[in-house]
Amino acid sequence: MENAAIGLVVHAVGRTGVLHQLTGVIARHEGDITSVEILDNWPAEARTYFEIVVPGGQEALLDDLRQLPIVRSVELVNTLEKIYGKRIIIMGGGAQVGQVAIGAVSEADRHNIRGEHISVDTIPLVGEQKLADAVRAVARLPRAKALVLAGSLMGGEIEAAVREVRRQGLLVVSLNMAGSVPDAADLVVTDPVQAGVMAVMAVADTAKFTVERLKRRVF
Amino acid sequence: MENAAIGLVVHAVGRTGVLHQLTGVIARHEGDITSVEILDNWPAEARTYFEIVVPGGQEALLDDLRQLPIVRSVELVNTLEKIYGKRIIIMGGGAQVGQVAIGAVSEADRHNIRGEHISVDTIPLVGEQKLADAVRAVARLPRAKALVLAGSLMGGEIEAAVREVRRQGLLVVSLNMAGSVPDAADLVVTDPVQAGVMAVMAVADTAKFTVERLKRRVF
Repeated sequence: MENAAIGLVVHAVGRTGVLHQLTGVIARHEGDITSVEILDNWPAEARTYFEIVVPGGQEALLDDLRQLPIVRSVELVNTLEKIYGKRIIIMGGGAQVGQVAIGAVSEADRHNIRGEHISVDTIPLVGEQKLADAVRAVARLPRAKALVLAGSLMGGEIEAAVREVRRQGLLVVSLNMAGSVPDAADLVVTDPVQAGVMAVMAVADTAKFTVERLKRRVF
Repeated sequence: MENAAIGLVVHAVGRTGVLHQLTGVIARHEGDITSVEILDNWPAEARTYFEIVVPGGQEALLDDLRQLPIVRSVELVNTLEKIYGKRIIIMGGGAQVGQVAIGAVSEADRHNIRGEHISVDTIPLVGEQKLADAVRAVARLPRAKALVLAGSLMGGEIEAAVREVRRQGLLVVSLNMAGSVPDAADLVVTDPVQAGVMAVMAVADTAKFTVERLKRRVF
C-alpha cells in the first residue's frame, strides 16, 4: 500500500540553491515529492512547502532537514491536496463565468459536505490569444480536473488549445456559444448554472455521473 | 533591474531525485526559482514546471538542463504569474460563496480588460476545523493576495486562523455574520456581491481603493 503524502513547510535562509539542498536530503530518504510551492523567496526568509511520500519514517527525514545549516525550522502541516482537493477551472467572460461559478460552487458544496474536496477556480479573460494561453496553462495547474469555457464566442487558437488539453486528460465543458470551441469540447451545455453543476458532478467521486456514458453531449 | 521570470516545462524520466538534479543545474546558473509545480510524477514521465529568474542568458541554462541524462526535453512557456496573476480566495457556505464570486468575477473582469491579472478561486466548506485549516492553508497557496470569508456563523479556531494569516500579510474580508470572525477581519461587508467587488478592488493596481485609507471598516 502506498503511504499517504505528508505536508512540510521548511523555513530556511538564502535564495539560490535552497531547493537543491532541501531536495537532496529528501532524495537521500527516497522521498517522492508530489508537490512543491515556493512560499517566500528572500535571502532572509525562504519558505518552501512540500508534499512528500516517504517510504521510511518521516521523523528521520525531518531530523535530517533540520540538520542543514540553511534550515531554521521544519513544520508538519495538512496537505493542500487534502484541503483544496480537485479543482474545476472556469474561464471566459465575467457575466458567464459568474453564473457557471454559482452552479459549480453550489454543487461542490453538496459533495464536500459528503467528504469530497472540490474547489472552483475562475478567471475572467477576454481575447483569443489570452484565452488560448490560459487554456494551455491549465495543464500546468496542480490538481486541475475539469475546465469550463464560459463565453459567447470562442474559436480559432482557443479551439486548438482545447484539443491539446483534452489529449492531456483534462475534461472540457463548453457553454453553447458561437465559434468552434463547442465542437472541440467533451460536453456542451446551454445553461451556465447547469454547466457548472455538470462539471463538478463529472469529477466528484460522490456523484453518479460519467461523461462517457452520456447518450448525447449537447444539453 | 531584475530580470523577468521565464517559465520552463522540463520532461524527464525517473521519480525520486529528479527535482534534486534539475535544481542542481539551475543553482549552478544562479537561477532564482520563484515557483515550481510537479505536473507528472511517474517513473516514465516526470513533468516539472519552473518559474526562474536567470541572471545570465536563458539559453545556457536550457542547454545544460537538456544535457542531463534524465531529461528528454525542455519547453519555454508563459509563466502562470503572467496568466493567472493575483488570486482572491473565497471560502465558506455554498450560497454565500457563489454570491461573493459573482461580485469578484465581474469586478476582476473589468480590471483584467485593463491589463490586470486577477483570478478568483473558491471552495465551499462546512465545519470550524475544516475552515480553520483551509484559512491557514491560504498562506501556502501561490499568488494568494486576499481571502473572503463567506458564511453566516464563523468563530473560534477560524478567528485564530484569520489573525495568523493577516500577520503573514494576507488581506481578509469577512461578510457581516454571527461569530467572532468579523472582529478579526480587515474589512466587514454585509452585501456578498460588494464583498467580492471590494476584495478585488483592494488588490487591483488598476483600482483607486486602499483598505488602510478607509474611514470605517464595516459596510
